[in-house]
Amino acid sequence: MHEQFNFAIEVLGTIAFSMSGSFAAMQKRLDPFGVLIIAFVTSVGGGTVRDLLLDIPVFWMHDILMCTLILVTSIFSMIFKSLEKNFKVTLFIFDSFGLGLFTIIGVQKGLNAGIHPMICIALGTITGCFGGIIRDILLNRIPLIFRKEIYATACIVGGAVFLLMTKYSVLSYTFVQILTILLIVAIRTLAVKYHWQMPKFYGYDHNNSEM
Amino acid sequence: MHEQFNFAIEVLGTIAFSMSGSFAAMQKRLDPFGVLIIAFVTSVGGGTVRDLLLDIPVFWMHDILMCTLILVTSIFSMIFKSLEKNFKVTLFIFDSFGLGLFTIIGVQKGLNAGIHPMICIALGTITGCFGGIIRDILLNRIPLIFRKEIYATACIVGGAVFLLMTKYSVLSYTFVQILTILLIVAIRTLAVKYHWQMPKFYGYDHNNSEM
Amino acid sequence: MHEQFNFAIEVLGTIAFSMSGSFAAMQKRLDPFGVLIIAFVTSVGGGTVRDLLLDIPVFWMHDILMCTLILVTSIFSMIFKSLEKNFKVTLFIFDSFGLGLFTIIGVQKGLNAGIHPMICIALGTITGCFGGIIRDILLNRIPLIFRKEIYATACIVGGAVFLLMTKYSVLSYTFVQILTILLIVAIRTLAVKYHWQMPKFYGYDHNNSEM
Repeated sequence: MHEQFNFAIEVLGTIAFSMSGSFAAMQKRLDPFGVLIIAFVTSVGGGTVRDLLLDIPVFWMHDILMCTLILVTSIFSMIFKSLEKNFKVTLFIFDSFGLGLFTIIGVQKGLNAGIHPMICIALGTITGCFGGIIRDILLNRIPLIFRKEIYATACIVGGAVFLLMTKYSVLSYTFVQILTILLIVAIRTLAVKYHWQMPKFYGYDHNNSEM
Repeated sequence: MHEQFNFAIEVLGTIAFSMSGSFAAMQKRLDPFGVLIIAFVTSVGGGTVRDLLLDIPVFWMHDILMCTLILVTSIFSMIFKSLEKNFKVTLFIFDSFGLGLFTIIGVQKGLNAGIHPMICIALGTITGCFGGIIRDILLNRIPLIFRKEIYATACIVGGAVFLLMTKYSVLSYTFVQILTILLIVAIRTLAVKYHWQMPKFYGYDHNNSEM
Repeated sequence: MHEQFNFAIEVLGTIAFSMSGSFAAMQKRLDPFGVLIIAFVTSVGGGTVRDLLLDIPVFWMHDILMCTLILVTSIFSMIFKSLEKNFKVTLFIFDSFGLGLFTIIGVQKGLNAGIHPMICIALGTITGCFGGIIRDILLNRIPLIFRKEIYATACIVGGAVFLLMTKYSVLSYTFVQILTILLIVAIRTLAVKYHWQMPKFYGYDHNNSEM
C-alpha cells in the first residue's frame, strides 16, 4: 500500500506540473511542440537534477508510462486551453500539491541514498522547485520563485517538518507524508491568499543595479 | 564503413555547431575567449546532457580530437568573420545538417542503451537542440527554438521517421540514416524559405503576461 | 600538509563565492531563502558540473561541513549586509581568490581522473566560472563573465601556467599552486584596476541583433 501511495503521489505531481508548464508556454504563444517540450521540462526537471546529483538512474529514462502521462496531459491542456480561466483555482491547487508531493519524494530518495538529513531538505527543495525554475529560464521570465510569495520557503519548511516528524513522532509514515503535503499546500495557499511575503532586502538598488 | 560514416557525421555536426556558436557570440561582441566558450558549449551541450541522462561517459571528456576540432573551427571563424555574409547560406546549411546529424546520433545512443523508442526521440531532440538552447540562454536571447520556424519539430519528425524506417523498411541502415538527415534538412530549409510555422496559441496575452 | 592545504583552499573559495552570491541576491531584493539558494548555487555550481562531467560523486552530497559553511556564511552576509560598502574591496579580493582556488581544484581533479591536460584546463575554467554563470542566469543578469574585464581568460591562462609549471619546473607542488593562485588574482586585479579588456568583435550589430 505504501508503494502504491508513493506512486499515486508521483502521478498526481507529474500531471500538476505538466499542466502548469503547458499553460505557461501557451501564454507565451509557443507552437504545440514548444508547449510539449516546456511541459516535459517542467515535469521532469527537478527530479532529473536530483537523480543526477544522487548518481542514480534518471527516473524517466526507463519509465514510458510517465512520459506518456506528460504527453497526454499536455495535449489535453492544449485542447482545453480555453477553459483555463475556469481552471485557474484548480490549477493553483494542482501546482501546490505538485510542490508538496515532489518535495516529499526528493527528501525520501535522499534518505534512501544515505544522505545527511540537512542535504535531503536541499534535495527536496530542488525536486520541487527546479522544474519551474528551468521553465521560467526557457520562457525568459524572471524565475518567479525568487520574487513572489513564499514558494521555496514552503519546501524548506515542509522538508524540515517531515524529517522531524518521521524521526520523533509516533505517527505512521503514510500519515506523516499526508500531513507534510497538506502543510506545504496550506502554506502556499495562505501565502497567496493573504499576500504573505518573507521580508526582503530593500534600500539597495540605488547603486548601479548592473554592478 | 558504418563506423566511419558515424564518425564523419559527428565531425561535420560539431564543425557546423561550432561555427554557428562562434558567429552568434561575435554578433554579441564577446571577446575571443568568450567566443571560444560559446562555440564549445553550442557544440557539446546537447551531447553532454544526453550522456548525463544515459549515465554513460560524457563523450568529449576523453576525446581530445573533438575538443581540438572545436578550437580550430572557432579560431577559423574568428579570423574569417568578415566572410560571414557570404557564408550566410553556407552557415544555414551547416546548421541544418548539424541538427539532422546530431538528432540521429542521439536516437542511436538511446537505442544502444536499451531505451524505449519514444524516449529515444526525446534524446535525439535533446542532442540536436540543447546546445543551441544553452547558447541562447548564455547570450541572453530568447531561445529561438521556441519562437521561430519549425526547429524542434524537425527533430521530432525526423527521429520518428528514422525509427519507423529502421523497423519496418528493407532499406540498409546507412541509407536510412542519410534519408533521415536529408529529411530534417529539407524540413528546415523549406520551413525557412516559405515561412512555415506551426500554428501558435494566440489571443492569450491580454492577461498580465508576467503572471 | 598537502591535503590540509587543498582543504584550506576549498574552504576559502567556498566562503568567497557564498558571500559574492549573497550580496548579488540581496542587491536584487530577494527574500532570505532566495538569498540562501543563490549563495548555495554560486558556491557549489561549478564543482557540481565538474563532478557530473567526470562522473565522480558530487562533492557536497556527502559533505555536511561544506553545506554548513555556506549556510553560516550566507546568514553572516545577510546580518552584516550594511557593511558591504566597506567590504567592497575585501569582497573583490575574496572573489578573485575564489576564482583562483577553484580553478586549481578543477584542474587537479581532472588530472586525477586521467583526463587530457587540455581538457583539464576546460574543467578548471568550468569549476571557477560556472557558479557565477548560473547565479547570473537565475538573477536574470547577462552573465558578466561574457561582458566585462578579463575573467574566464584568467582561469584559462592560470590553468595553462599551472600545467606547464607542474610538468617542466623543479618547484614544489604546493609552491606551484600558490604561484598560480596569485597569478590569477593578479590578472583579475590588474584587469579591473586598469580596465584591461580583450579586444572584442565590433562593427557587427548593425544587422538585426535578434537574428
